[in-house]
Amino acid sequence: MSSIYDQDLPRTAANFSAISPLSFIERSARVYPDLPAIVHGSGESAIRRTWSQTYRRCRQLASALVRSGVGKGDTVAVLLPNTPPMVEVHFGVPMTGAVLNTINTRLDPQTVAFILDHGEAGTLIVDSEFAGVARKALELRQSTKPLQVIDASDPIYTGPADSVGSIEYEAFIADGDPEFEWQLPGDEWDAIALNYTSGTTGNPKGVVYHHRGAALAAISNILEWDMPKHPVYLWTLPMFHCNGWCFPWAVAARAGVNVCLRKVEAKAIFDAIREHKVDHYCGAPIVHSMLVNAPDSLKEGIPEGVKAMVAGAAPPASMIEGMERMGFDLLHVYGLTETYGPATVCAKHSHWKDVDIGERARLNARQGVAYHLEEASCVMDPGTMTPLPWDGESMGEIMFRGNMVMKGYLKNPKATQEALAGGWFHSGDLAVADPDGYMKIKDRSKDIIISGGENISSIEVEDVLYRHPAVLAVAVVAKSDARWGETPCAFVEVKEGAQVTAEDIIKHCRDHLAGYKVPRHVVFCELPKTSTGKIQKFELRKKAEALEVEA
Amino acid sequence: MSSIYDQDLPRTAANFSAISPLSFIERSARVYPDLPAIVHGSGESAIRRTWSQTYRRCRQLASALVRSGVGKGDTVAVLLPNTPPMVEVHFGVPMTGAVLNTINTRLDPQTVAFILDHGEAGTLIVDSEFAGVARKALELRQSTKPLQVIDASDPIYTGPADSVGSIEYEAFIADGDPEFEWQLPGDEWDAIALNYTSGTTGNPKGVVYHHRGAALAAISNILEWDMPKHPVYLWTLPMFHCNGWCFPWAVAARAGVNVCLRKVEAKAIFDAIREHKVDHYCGAPIVHSMLVNAPDSLKEGIPEGVKAMVAGAAPPASMIEGMERMGFDLLHVYGLTETYGPATVCAKHSHWKDVDIGERARLNARQGVAYHLEEASCVMDPGTMTPLPWDGESMGEIMFRGNMVMKGYLKNPKATQEALAGGWFHSGDLAVADPDGYMKIKDRSKDIIISGGENISSIEVEDVLYRHPAVLAVAVVAKSDARWGETPCAFVEVKEGAQVTAEDIIKHCRDHLAGYKVPRHVVFCELPKTSTGKIQKFELRKKAEALEVEA
Repeated sequence: MSSIYDQDLPRTAANFSAISPLSFIERSARVYPDLPAIVHGSGESAIRRTWSQTYRRCRQLASALVRSGVGKGDTVAVLLPNTPPMVEVHFGVPMTGAVLNTINTRLDPQTVAFILDHGEAGTLIVDSEFAGVARKALELRQSTKPLQVIDASDPIYTGPADSVGSIEYEAFIADGDPEFEWQLPGDEWDAIALNYTSGTTGNPKGVVYHHRGAALAAISNILEWDMPKHPVYLWTLPMFHCNGWCFPWAVAARAGVNVCLRKVEAKAIFDAIREHKVDHYCGAPIVHSMLVNAPDSLKEGIPEGVKAMVAGAAPPASMIEGMERMGFDLLHVYGLTETYGPATVCAKHSHWKDVDIGERARLNARQGVAYHLEEASCVMDPGTMTPLPWDGESMGEIMFRGNMVMKGYLKNPKATQEALAGGWFHSGDLAVADPDGYMKIKDRSKDIIISGGENISSIEVEDVLYRHPAVLAVAVVAKSDARWGETPCAFVEVKEGAQVTAEDIIKHCRDHLAGYKVPRHVVFCELPKTSTGKIQKFELRKKAEALEVEA
Repeated sequence: MSSIYDQDLPRTAANFSAISPLSFIERSARVYPDLPAIVHGSGESAIRRTWSQTYRRCRQLASALVRSGVGKGDTVAVLLPNTPPMVEVHFGVPMTGAVLNTINTRLDPQTVAFILDHGEAGTLIVDSEFAGVARKALELRQSTKPLQVIDASDPIYTGPADSVGSIEYEAFIADGDPEFEWQLPGDEWDAIALNYTSGTTGNPKGVVYHHRGAALAAISNILEWDMPKHPVYLWTLPMFHCNGWCFPWAVAARAGVNVCLRKVEAKAIFDAIREHKVDHYCGAPIVHSMLVNAPDSLKEGIPEGVKAMVAGAAPPASMIEGMERMGFDLLHVYGLTETYGPATVCAKHSHWKDVDIGERARLNARQGVAYHLEEASCVMDPGTMTPLPWDGESMGEIMFRGNMVMKGYLKNPKATQEALAGGWFHSGDLAVADPDGYMKIKDRSKDIIISGGENISSIEVEDVLYRHPAVLAVAVVAKSDARWGETPCAFVEVKEGAQVTAEDIIKHCRDHLAGYKVPRHVVFCELPKTSTGKIQKFELRKKAEALEVEA
């Protein structure tokens, strides 16, 4: 017998609507039409637009795209830095029912061509700076599908003018209707974005986001950060990276200001914080370290309490300390492209203020607990698919489940099924759960070093190395070893002006680590990094294998 | 041809889970187990429980309910004031798949019996104070369905001990498993709560809420209020009223403190604010007015910046001014039982600070704009179902659409279809939209006074009356008139010690209103109010009709 609650209470247009971040911009334009939405540049020459203007431009873009033939389920790719058009495509593209594919601007033409082919893009929007890459990618493209190319020339860009498309962005949207009547998706499970992971081997995989997840991720960011209405958000994090952790949508929901930024440089960041009164920004540890290590002269007049969010790698203690000294309020989050960016948070407790800064840094460096609107994240035994005890020792894999897990990988059912096997998304990160339930990554599955049958966490060794005063950045990888199978090999980037020898480094490690964990090789060099600041360990592994083995 | 985004990207247990407020308490108990969740009473004798303890008690309740036979789609009714068990039922009941029916504790036994019958409750939990009403209601009940009755005796209650059930609440839950493994609803559209509207005519209607709407309403409250983590929330608003505007779930999401309160009295409220450091509370205008008009001695030591939310009737300007003088930060919201409580907000603008307090009060007294996660709310022509211009003059009906509109009325498809006709929920409130798009209620459809063919907004007349210094509270209703059809009749409650005559009142109205809007009759009396502080105009209409007509 069905319950009385299952009778005559259907979903209707009145009581059910798709959850979508598109609703956020509509509301902010309606309620706060005259508040600033975008600022790009500095002083008199800066581009400034309100939420009303931005919403109208997004609708113009959507209208122009539809007139050019774009429709539901199509892919619109972009090669853009953090400029106003990059904010606009986050709304204008999904307003048409199409899917936004933000391509990493640091990729080589070959990979860009692969992405254009695989994602079946019918439209590509390119900033002048990347016209050259796009031109080569178009030549390398194998698909014969027509591709409409639009040039976005940014008045702030000072490099050589270049173009590759058939029309300029401003001319393209000028043809659109600023009152275009877009529709919410018919199903909130409809795709909104496509993000290719920078896989370390093989071709990149296309991670598909839906409207429901994008909206809930944006709201979760607001909740985790206690982000009040009208924040001033600086775009240090590339929007091509997990859609800027869904912050284009979060900032719209809060009717905040998108402070655009073409290049991530310490001076530009501090200048923007001062001029535009920035109070929030995100980035990989490398971004925050750059600020911590910048000359004091750049930091003059920076207010207390700027909120910074860090993810992409565990922030070293030295960085957390440096941020505190600058008066910045750092929140550590963790996630992957497959989880819409951050989906766990190292949620702070007031009593952490009472412990010494080293211990507080250790507490804050953990990956923590699931985001508000992610159903669960825990350390599990991937064999039995059961959660491991909260003992700080049992190592397992971090898994996620909930509405902030991707739809899957585009045109790759096998990889999708593997990634979502057993009802959980498998992160590939190895971790323990501390007694308070907070997760702490020990390593990527593939980064673990197995020496004489013992697991060595490369992160543990790196944490020790980061405590050495001369060390700016470090990465530890496995090097094949005839006797031990693998041994740790450390690559070290030294602070400007610091003097240190391999022996110093090894002695420092001996003082703080079990013998078998001490690196056998120390190489001083600049570390290769991805466009999002992640150190490219696969490059270092190649270097490590190529090292001449000492006797 | 289906899009590439529709292929091989299905919902799975890994990437799709029901949106439900039950997730909120689980997360707070996991992340903030030792933070306070509930405080009831004062000083040493107060009941204090953490989120870990509260979560365990909710699971015990759920487990005990399941053992007693409660299951999915069953109704669990409660007659409880704002005590710890009232918080617990908001989680323990839906954890079983059952639906929580919070019954207004001020109702007469006849109406309670009707609700028990109509909602088909199989369990009833009753606070000692309401055992007498429950006993009579059980006698009046017509259903022969077995009804398990549980007594909740509150140690803070000082009235005569009374009981009506077969078991005491603490004994009942003691039998439950504190680690009960509850499940999220199979469908987020499943019912979570049943709230009977205190209709002015006919039998009350049972408004059904679902998990999705309850969770989104709770989050919207957090967003509208910029409610940070760990608020201290005082329960001045009855939880039986629209589930306390979904705040039991919002406070759980924020890991805040539920400060319980049996009786809404000025002294108890000020004492609680001081002792427990309350920073948030909600209520009808009458609650806030009570605080504004309380003796100064009660207000000593009250901090600046307590956040108050007001709904249930437009707050008069005098109250908004009084709140500002007390240093309370008032936010005006609007909604109905059918919209999970508040679903529009008079979102503030910073430039409102620059206008005089009278104008600011006028701006803040408007019903405003749709909540963050309600899709839309606007003033529409109910005939053509089109939005009216934002001209401050065109009067239409406030309509809502989105995820914060009820599933419908229980076992009443006709009323459901009427209420949701045309893809919008019809509020029954008549309003205009100001040029900034903010809605302003002119009247309830049924409260409008039609005199000589002219519409008179009872609210407009009341607003003028509230500006008279002797007036504490006022209500204007229609009185039948042989010549004019209807004329306005004012019922006035005078401030303590104030002296005023009917002539004074009428003169004051003549100075501020068109002649045909001036009340023909003025009656001084205490105004009859519902348990939520709303003035009962239907009672006053009866009184008005019974007045002897002056020559």
